[in-house]
Amino acid sequence: MLTNTKNTEQAFKSVGTSPIRPDGVPKVTGIAQYGADYSLPGMLWAKILRSPHAHARIRSINTSKAEALPGVKAVLTAADLPNQPFDYVGPERVAVNYWHMTRNILAREKALYEGHAIAAVAATTAAIAAEAISLIEVDYEILPHVIDVDEAMKPDAPLLFEDMITRGIEPAPTKPSNITKRLEFKVGDLDAGFASADEVVEMSFKTAPVHQGYIEPHSCLARFGADGQCELWSSSQGHFVVRAYTAKLLGMEIGNLVVHPAEIGGGFGGKTVVYVEPIAVALSRKTGHPVKIMMSREDVFKATGPTSGASMTVKIGVKKDGTIVAADGLFKFQAGAFPGSPVMNATMCAFAPYVIPNVRSVGFDVVCNRPKSAAYRAPGSPISAFAVESVLDVLAQKIGMDPLKLRLKNAVKAGSPTAWGPKHSHDGYAETIQALLNHPEYNKPLGKNQGRGVASGFWFNGGGESTASIHINEDGTVVLATGSMDVGGSRASMALMAAETLGVPYESVRSTVADTASIGYNHVTGGSRVTYATGLAVVEACNKIIEQLRLRASIMWDVDVKGVVWEDGFAKPADKSVGDFEPLSLKAIAAKRAVTGGPIVTEAAVNAGGQAPGFSTQFCDVEVDPETGAVKILRFVAAQDVGRAIHPKYCEGQIHGGVVQGIGWALNEEYIYDKQGRLANAGFLDYRIPVASDLPMIEAILVEVPNPNHPYGVKGVGEANIVPPMAAVANAIQRATGKRLTELPMSPPKVLAAIDAG
Amino acid sequence: MLTNTKNTEQAFKSVGTSPIRPDGVPKVTGIAQYGADYSLPGMLWAKILRSPHAHARIRSINTSKAEALPGVKAVLTAADLPNQPFDYVGPERVAVNYWHMTRNILAREKALYEGHAIAAVAATTAAIAAEAISLIEVDYEILPHVIDVDEAMKPDAPLLFEDMITRGIEPAPTKPSNITKRLEFKVGDLDAGFASADEVVEMSFKTAPVHQGYIEPHSCLARFGADGQCELWSSSQGHFVVRAYTAKLLGMEIGNLVVHPAEIGGGFGGKTVVYVEPIAVALSRKTGHPVKIMMSREDVFKATGPTSGASMTVKIGVKKDGTIVAADGLFKFQAGAFPGSPVMNATMCAFAPYVIPNVRSVGFDVVCNRPKSAAYRAPGSPISAFAVESVLDVLAQKIGMDPLKLRLKNAVKAGSPTAWGPKHSHDGYAETIQALLNHPEYNKPLGKNQGRGVASGFWFNGGGESTASIHINEDGTVVLATGSMDVGGSRASMALMAAETLGVPYESVRSTVADTASIGYNHVTGGSRVTYATGLAVVEACNKIIEQLRLRASIMWDVDVKGVVWEDGFAKPADKSVGDFEPLSLKAIAAKRAVTGGPIVTEAAVNAGGQAPGFSTQFCDVEVDPETGAVKILRFVAAQDVGRAIHPKYCEGQIHGGVVQGIGWALNEEYIYDKQGRLANAGFLDYRIPVASDLPMIEAILVEVPNPNHPYGVKGVGEANIVPPMAAVANAIQRATGKRLTELPMSPPKVLAAIDAG
Repeated sequence: MLTNTKNTEQAFKSVGTSPIRPDGVPKVTGIAQYGADYSLPGMLWAKILRSPHAHARIRSINTSKAEALPGVKAVLTAADLPNQPFDYVGPERVAVNYWHMTRNILAREKALYEGHAIAAVAATTAAIAAEAISLIEVDYEILPHVIDVDEAMKPDAPLLFEDMITRGIEPAPTKPSNITKRLEFKVGDLDAGFASADEVVEMSFKTAPVHQGYIEPHSCLARFGADGQCELWSSSQGHFVVRAYTAKLLGMEIGNLVVHPAEIGGGFGGKTVVYVEPIAVALSRKTGHPVKIMMSREDVFKATGPTSGASMTVKIGVKKDGTIVAADGLFKFQAGAFPGSPVMNATMCAFAPYVIPNVRSVGFDVVCNRPKSAAYRAPGSPISAFAVESVLDVLAQKIGMDPLKLRLKNAVKAGSPTAWGPKHSHDGYAETIQALLNHPEYNKPLGKNQGRGVASGFWFNGGGESTASIHINEDGTVVLATGSMDVGGSRASMALMAAETLGVPYESVRSTVADTASIGYNHVTGGSRVTYATGLAVVEACNKIIEQLRLRASIMWDVDVKGVVWEDGFAKPADKSVGDFEPLSLKAIAAKRAVTGGPIVTEAAVNAGGQAPGFSTQFCDVEVDPETGAVKILRFVAAQDVGRAIHPKYCEGQIHGGVVQGIGWALNEEYIYDKQGRLANAGFLDYRIPVASDLPMIEAILVEVPNPNHPYGVKGVGEANIVPPMAAVANAIQRATGKRLTELPMSPPKVLAAIDAG
Repeated sequence: MLTNTKNTEQAFKSVGTSPIRPDGVPKVTGIAQYGADYSLPGMLWAKILRSPHAHARIRSINTSKAEALPGVKAVLTAADLPNQPFDYVGPERVAVNYWHMTRNILAREKALYEGHAIAAVAATTAAIAAEAISLIEVDYEILPHVIDVDEAMKPDAPLLFEDMITRGIEPAPTKPSNITKRLEFKVGDLDAGFASADEVVEMSFKTAPVHQGYIEPHSCLARFGADGQCELWSSSQGHFVVRAYTAKLLGMEIGNLVVHPAEIGGGFGGKTVVYVEPIAVALSRKTGHPVKIMMSREDVFKATGPTSGASMTVKIGVKKDGTIVAADGLFKFQAGAFPGSPVMNATMCAFAPYVIPNVRSVGFDVVCNRPKSAAYRAPGSPISAFAVESVLDVLAQKIGMDPLKLRLKNAVKAGSPTAWGPKHSHDGYAETIQALLNHPEYNKPLGKNQGRGVASGFWFNGGGESTASIHINEDGTVVLATGSMDVGGSRASMALMAAETLGVPYESVRSTVADTASIGYNHVTGGSRVTYATGLAVVEACNKIIEQLRLRASIMWDVDVKGVVWEDGFAKPADKSVGDFEPLSLKAIAAKRAVTGGPIVTEAAVNAGGQAPGFSTQFCDVEVDPETGAVKILRFVAAQDVGRAIHPKYCEGQIHGGVVQGIGWALNEEYIYDKQGRLANAGFLDYRIPVASDLPMIEAILVEVPNPNHPYGVKGVGEANIVPPMAAVANAIQRATGKRLTELPMSPPKVLAAIDAG
């Protein structure tokens, strides 16, 4: 369903339609080549030896038996990779800590989690490689480990980095700990704020780490030449970032590495980092053969980033009329084995949807003996939202107010303050609430053991660096290339924006993703940045092409270029004084390309700011089985401000996907560790993501509040949708059962225990 | 040896050096992927059924037995390809005749030469495909055939196209013939010219068709998707032209076909056309599988273009002082089975090196039952030069003049007229003659049975459409992409020109050839156009990048961009008034890319004119064995005006290669047909190209007369070198033996027969 709220009177021909996706047929017919689908003559297979221990010092690694196995071409350990400058905590936020990254690729001093890569073998067959890694002898000194974030923060917890001092505390602590950093955002006077409240609720919550659950395991193929030039085929969310990381970790010049973008079978943030790529390149360099690595599902679960689990306390005070007067949040995030949870995002997003005069958010980034966390769809925001949106639901009931109306009363809009400084730049939140208030099902009564929960969510949405090139073929077809991996429909959305800008049919535009040697830099496909930022590069490239088309037409007509305008895909005389010329189509101009200056090409790059944040508001109806504690989702309605839907079907797909992942996070997904810190459910049979039969048809409402900083009003649409579901489901369960669950997942045993507790 | 003749005082850092070639290590180590090196899962192998007859009507083709063979997935005949608009002779010169081309790809009404493709089969293995083509039943009506050009021009010759009327004759003939067209270039008054001559010589010549002799047979892999999108991997001299031809022949939109440039194992003009590509794509479209085709060597000889054989008469008159006063040439060229010999080039080039007041060149394009001729290194020019430069040698002896001095006396320079209209645009010819006159070996006496021959040659050199893109990586390495296939070192020359223009080391530039979806159009690598035209695109792209680098520096310094200059790879303040700033390297600017506007990228396209013609003058010393007629090349010195040698070693390699091919053409290479019009020597054992032991070390003299229309003075260097050798060898044989050979190849039996004739 598409809800146009404002400023959409503009008529588009391509934008807003949902044509067949360019990647559809190749994926359905099996032609699409994913990371594991590349092979080369003489190729070796690599396998990775992983730590069986959650925490152990590596005294020595003896690879001689493995090396002696016939068919083994090379064994790789961390000693083969250059070390990186020492740096425990690194600079703020986005910058990359290579000291940690190289240790996550291959353990050096210690194994920090079960599954931590210790060594790798390249052999002529996968079976030989697997046998060889079993012959590698590692002398481990097993150390005490810590899995839980609260345990890891205790003064006597086993330390992953024995001399790491927490950053962000004044004065700096003298005692090392597992806490990487503390951060805080604060506005107003908390005490005064809470003192003015009519109702104050403070609650604590825990969430489980959950995996991105992409279907395609990490896979790559590397070929390193004797001249130092390397080609790499890899499934990732950003082949330029794979290039940068891999080059850095191997001490290569960036120009010596070309990364080809494989089709991606899901990433959701988890493929913005490298795991197997540096190992494959290093083994290819060592052996002179192409080297292929495919992770198993177990590898993926044990050694690639889930998002953080967290322990949180949130306190909010409201007036009787629903005005929020004060909020305080404490967010403790597991980073996994190396620093870098999304706790900063979580603290920023926690109260972002609301105008709150007195607010504080405190975050802790804490290492523990789990795989290093990685980005997962709106990283951090769903976690803090679970706490905040749960507390708001309690407050709404305390003051007897509809939970949507409570949110609407406090909703931010353009110009509202944020806890971290700049004002909100756009509207969009209130419109999503209103869309649900207007929904015919929202006030419909429910039956026994049923409940309706609401929640909202915020995501920044990204901008950043993108490049696009456009080439006009001699028959007028248009080739559009970007370097942004297409994880959610960007080939289609780029083609639609190009078709719209050029005034040509969508069908005449071929939208591709080019390799790192054939297009300029594009940052990762993540943060819901691509349709916005890469889209801006595409529109800029189209506008540059239109300038050329006008020039070519002016040459064909022998008039001044100022006398030529571009309208609806045709060059036309600006007015009658220019001359009586038949309009020239792009195809007609392309046919005369050679005699008007040669190929019609351009490339445009941006570092885009001006992106608009995304908001989602959702309600769900659940039925709880009092006998088993099982929760059935009866209805799920998700409204999201999409700016303007370039390809509405893809936007709906993004919402469906985010909600489904949120439902899995809410109800089932968790990592189960044994006492030795070993993961007990490293597979999709035991780590339960939702399947179609678990779910109702999710209703996506596309609310369009165009972003004035983009020619087509684009806002990112990929992430805000995963923020509300956990709280929405918890709120629905509470309204169905009277029991407030504060720990994820809200799996049947926990729900049953809550019911049984009476 | 490098001979700088003028205007080369300019000092360059990269241009003029010969660093290691980017393609060297991949080729030597086997990593380079040629046309046959690509495979895909589920791939089928295709084989092509070829006509055993030189000329036959195809009454019917029965493919049912082949189709029934287990493993066969599809059989293809011409009926599967769309027909093309009827057109016997087509427009002038470069334009492409698709009516003929589709008939060459797969025969329709008739088989026109032995080896003509009749049908193709795609099967699960190559062996099954080979068996299947043997099961195809073709009902042929065998027709009389004609192989020789003079025979084919006779009024009663068998006609390849029964109703084709010669174009270019006024009034048009009423009787059909095998003569496609007649063309003529004429200046002055021939009769008056010859009347004023002191000596006139008229002689007739014949040349044999010779094959380009590339080592790599034509090979490709096609994958056609269910959505109509196709990818093609192909070894060619121009993947954009492969795309255009293939799309046209299959009725596809150009945008639906992406062609990836395989490494090329030689082309020399012969890979500017398509043979297997449309068949592979059509079979992939028909089967839904990837389809691979590899020609055998026999296929290459029987079904791909050699250059034309010719029958020629040349008459030249000179004054006693060596002034050429008149010249008349008649050039009859075999086109092979379809119109389109290089006779126009031959008639234009024949007398091009000389200022001749009265001159006529008449050419005929004649079809006969041989494979369609294709471009071969300076197409046409070596053939007519064999005649013209032989006659000049006779005249030099008649008037007792040194043959180099005779040429020098009449040499064209900038401003000299041409027979076809425009004046010569550049110098260069006289300088090559002078280089040989100055050569220490030129006047050295020879022994018994030895002789020294000289000859010169002309080639237009090409310009045309090219595109280049440049991307600056975050570590300051430079990625340079063009769409010009690298057949003779263009990756290196492009990198050198980019390094020179940007002021960075050659080693920091990575030069690549991008696919048709990732870069703008580049015409074929042919006509010695790439270093010139694609080089211009590269330099223009570099200059656009420098503008961006200046802008980025101005942002970093917070000054007006006008205050920033680019010198030697650094942004510097234009003067002291701008400020006291340390110069910024490209690397330093690249590191700050994100905060100064994002990726530093550009793409530039040209349709380049302004190219300069190339001249080569050569002398060779031979020894003729009077017992066997075998000719041994004792010395070969080749001077060529290279404009400016961007990478001198590659320029020398071009000269070595052209001379070697010319020596093969002169002494050994020929097609031997039996009475049924079947080729008897379709393999390298019997079709004898020179091997290293046949040859002396060829001395290449690089004469530099920079082209003022190119920033580095580039002229094409790939072709002029193959023009003189046949005449130089013939002239040397004559001076060694007293016998004038007028028919190529001058193989031992022919030389012996001439000697024995007494």
